[in-house]
Amino acid sequence: MGLSGQLRVTIWNENVHDQRDETVRRIYPKGMHGAIADGLRRELGGSVSVRFATLEEPEHGLTAEALEETDVLTWWGHAAHDKVADEVVDRVHSRVLNGMGLVVLHSGHYSKIFRRLMGTSCTLRWRSDEGGEREVIWTVNPGHPIAAGVPQPIVIPHQEMYGEFFDIPPPDELVFISSFEGGEVFRSGCCYQRGAGRVVYFSPGDQVFPVYHQPEIQRVIANCVAWCGGAAPANDVPSQRAGNATRNWYLKA
Amino acid sequence: MGLSGQLRVTIWNENVHDQRDETVRRIYPKGMHGAIADGLRRELGGSVSVRFATLEEPEHGLTAEALEETDVLTWWGHAAHDKVADEVVDRVHSRVLNGMGLVVLHSGHYSKIFRRLMGTSCTLRWRSDEGGEREVIWTVNPGHPIAAGVPQPIVIPHQEMYGEFFDIPPPDELVFISSFEGGEVFRSGCCYQRGAGRVVYFSPGDQVFPVYHQPEIQRVIANCVAWCGGAAPANDVPSQRAGNATRNWYLKA
Amino acid sequence: MGLSGQLRVTIWNENVHDQRDETVRRIYPKGMHGAIADGLRRELGGSVSVRFATLEEPEHGLTAEALEETDVLTWWGHAAHDKVADEVVDRVHSRVLNGMGLVVLHSGHYSKIFRRLMGTSCTLRWRSDEGGEREVIWTVNPGHPIAAGVPQPIVIPHQEMYGEFFDIPPPDELVFISSFEGGEVFRSGCCYQRGAGRVVYFSPGDQVFPVYHQPEIQRVIANCVAWCGGAAPANDVPSQRAGNATRNWYLKA
Amino acid sequence: MGLSGQLRVTIWNENVHDQRDETVRRIYPKGMHGAIADGLRRELGGSVSVRFATLEEPEHGLTAEALEETDVLTWWGHAAHDKVADEVVDRVHSRVLNGMGLVVLHSGHYSKIFRRLMGTSCTLRWRSDEGGEREVIWTVNPGHPIAAGVPQPIVIPHQEMYGEFFDIPPPDELVFISSFEGGEVFRSGCCYQRGAGRVVYFSPGDQVFPVYHQPEIQRVIANCVAWCGGAAPANDVPSQRAGNATRNWYLKA
Repeated sequence: MGLSGQLRVTIWNENVHDQRDETVRRIYPKGMHGAIADGLRRELGGSVSVRFATLEEPEHGLTAEALEETDVLTWWGHAAHDKVADEVVDRVHSRVLNGMGLVVLHSGHYSKIFRRLMGTSCTLRWRSDEGGEREVIWTVNPGHPIAAGVPQPIVIPHQEMYGEFFDIPPPDELVFISSFEGGEVFRSGCCYQRGAGRVVYFSPGDQVFPVYHQPEIQRVIANCVAWCGGAAPANDVPSQRAGNATRNWYLKA
Repeated sequence: MGLSGQLRVTIWNENVHDQRDETVRRIYPKGMHGAIADGLRRELGGSVSVRFATLEEPEHGLTAEALEETDVLTWWGHAAHDKVADEVVDRVHSRVLNGMGLVVLHSGHYSKIFRRLMGTSCTLRWRSDEGGEREVIWTVNPGHPIAAGVPQPIVIPHQEMYGEFFDIPPPDELVFISSFEGGEVFRSGCCYQRGAGRVVYFSPGDQVFPVYHQPEIQRVIANCVAWCGGAAPANDVPSQRAGNATRNWYLKA
Repeated sequence: MGLSGQLRVTIWNENVHDQRDETVRRIYPKGMHGAIADGLRRELGGSVSVRFATLEEPEHGLTAEALEETDVLTWWGHAAHDKVADEVVDRVHSRVLNGMGLVVLHSGHYSKIFRRLMGTSCTLRWRSDEGGEREVIWTVNPGHPIAAGVPQPIVIPHQEMYGEFFDIPPPDELVFISSFEGGEVFRSGCCYQRGAGRVVYFSPGDQVFPVYHQPEIQRVIANCVAWCGGAAPANDVPSQRAGNATRNWYLKA
Repeated sequence: MGLSGQLRVTIWNENVHDQRDETVRRIYPKGMHGAIADGLRRELGGSVSVRFATLEEPEHGLTAEALEETDVLTWWGHAAHDKVADEVVDRVHSRVLNGMGLVVLHSGHYSKIFRRLMGTSCTLRWRSDEGGEREVIWTVNPGHPIAAGVPQPIVIPHQEMYGEFFDIPPPDELVFISSFEGGEVFRSGCCYQRGAGRVVYFSPGDQVFPVYHQPEIQRVIANCVAWCGGAAPANDVPSQRAGNATRNWYLKA
């Protein structure tokens, strides 16, 4: 938390489709990060401060200082996962283990940082027909904070299909499962504890559909940000290999 | 295991619909337990010995001796959950904690024994239109033994809908998720460790549809039986509250 | 939450040892519930309102109204588990599934309500030598809210030994593991989601040792209360079996 | 499985201490891999075929063919984690996701492959006094196959201390917890599902103590190998990102 008590959120967007594709520009004139920020501000108001970071910035806008001042990072990428520098991925990874929250959105499932944190391939089935298809999102953990205040189910009229098998570790907490018109299912809201940090993957959202303008989806993302920001300050340090410093640990005579 | 090395399976069926309803008799002339047994024998052959037990028998066919000689119990009930004697439920419960496997099928979700083991209400959404609807079952844990040898996905043409929220504890291992034509989803294959015993809930199967004749479903049930029977003999005794007998536990000087 | 925004906590104490045993009266002149309340008030201040309930009251102080006005219930029992009326247990159970938090303390592991929620025997090893022995409590999930602000490890100088095998379902979140002088270990801080409610079991604390006066232990209990009170209002109703009301569920054409 | 039905095990040993250090040579004249193999053969007999691979071999003995013919790989490393080629790590990682079992031993917690699979730092506390100290290993999941046939508890007279916080993802199945003389605890037997493969981390074992000669420890390692080899052949392919090939997935009209 910042001195002001605000949750400091950095919305990271690859920001490639948003600039390059006419369709995407029309749906997200302020970029997807703009729509995500609008939702956070509406839902969380003054309890949150938002900044943006994009791929094109130096160090992708994710310098050590920027991360140090970030309580929760949201991640959207798709066309340029490989362009994210390994050094930045290392830094984000380390920061998550030390307590920063991370909310990975949609095609971010295949980002370097998510695959690093999961340790699996993070592959999935997908289908992207023109016009998309209906996604129905069911809460399977109704008291979980990331499901607060949303209808059962949430219906997205037009969305790209993401289907199982989704190669992720079994979620520590599974909150949402989606169905699609083809009969596919997908674990669409997955929570993880990694080191002292919390990670959520939330799949709805796509550059060619106005999903990030949908209030229920904005509400879930706000919930994810709040939940990831609610990890307690760690009472132990996971990021260094504890060595001889503990040799004289007082419990051993 | 019996002396012969066979897995000893008791197929428990309430056996009410099977006798009372003409439709059910036509689909399951040997009762649902007969169809389940056929599948087990085809899939597991001589490695399994099968006996039946039904509600109408004394102690529902689940005497202390019968349970002692059972490695895995399968459970189907629907119309008469309340007729199952609490004493028998206690006995089955205790036997599971001591290592017997339990495979709970379909409407067995609301049986006394499943609710006892889960500790939750085990309620769910359901819809049973005439003719049923398509269920599509997806494996989300592709190396799990209960998913061995089945297609991805399994399709059941006609089935009753079971939907979320299904009030169960988060499964220790979630293997199958189903979708239905209405867009609903359901955690249809759920594994639990309870005491020294293994429990699986597998939802497909209904008295008015020939689901238990479908080879893929028979295969999954056989897989469930084999997996539940694969728990190791416990190296500790959970069923008695250890008391002063451990006062002189040698590790304490 | 109450209208005032306060978390409404009911501290339930069997209150048998506290009145009957001279030793216990000297250590806990206000009863263990008094010491627990002192800790909650110090740690959570005005954000919490506390009331007491004990076995000897009508309906053990846990009427439907009392539970309706309770966000989190803490439970201490030992000598009189069997005296708790089944009807009250049913009521508490149902209220947990509908979202009330429950913090079960020490010998409450063998209470009716905990065993009902867990579905297992909840037995364990124990040893209670005069003078007790050192318990060392390690955090294995350092960002979890119930571990906030406590040292790594917490040391209790004099405590009764509780050891494995503890017959509980695998915790949804395991936060604390304790060791004892005899070399035993125990899963001492276990979190569960059940229905829409959160449940924590925290083992330290005993009637003959001043554990509930120890500030770190009071802090953990306050953390548990705050965490259990942080479940979101459920967006689905688990406590009734959904029936034909869903037949015309709009998602199905 | 090989054609013969044998489980094909590759025991990988860094084999640095074993050759370099006189003490280690005396305790493990055939290398630690030799002692591990002796245990596997005694416990699993003809149902297993064993080969060795070490760091100094070309591609560390882990060529594509070697891995293809391996059902379960065990991993011991300590002094030369950084010398393991990234290309080999990638290959092992991919093979695990496709179904090969992996048993990571002791200081292998800090190997590249384990850290890759876990996605966390995998750091821990440790202390290695001359003569070591007593480790007591408790089973907390008494029906789990990796605990089959071992005493409750297992006692190792002389062992290096490994203590929490151990920065791993919450285990999918936690089977063993250890205590040490200093009062530390450690999650010493941790099971994971990753892709279609099973992974176990088992911490006991050290180059300067004869732990791998201890029959109970050999039994647990044999159990781990058998369990990791028991994953079913995957019914879905996690290692390739499914793309447009699924566009015409038949479930969508």
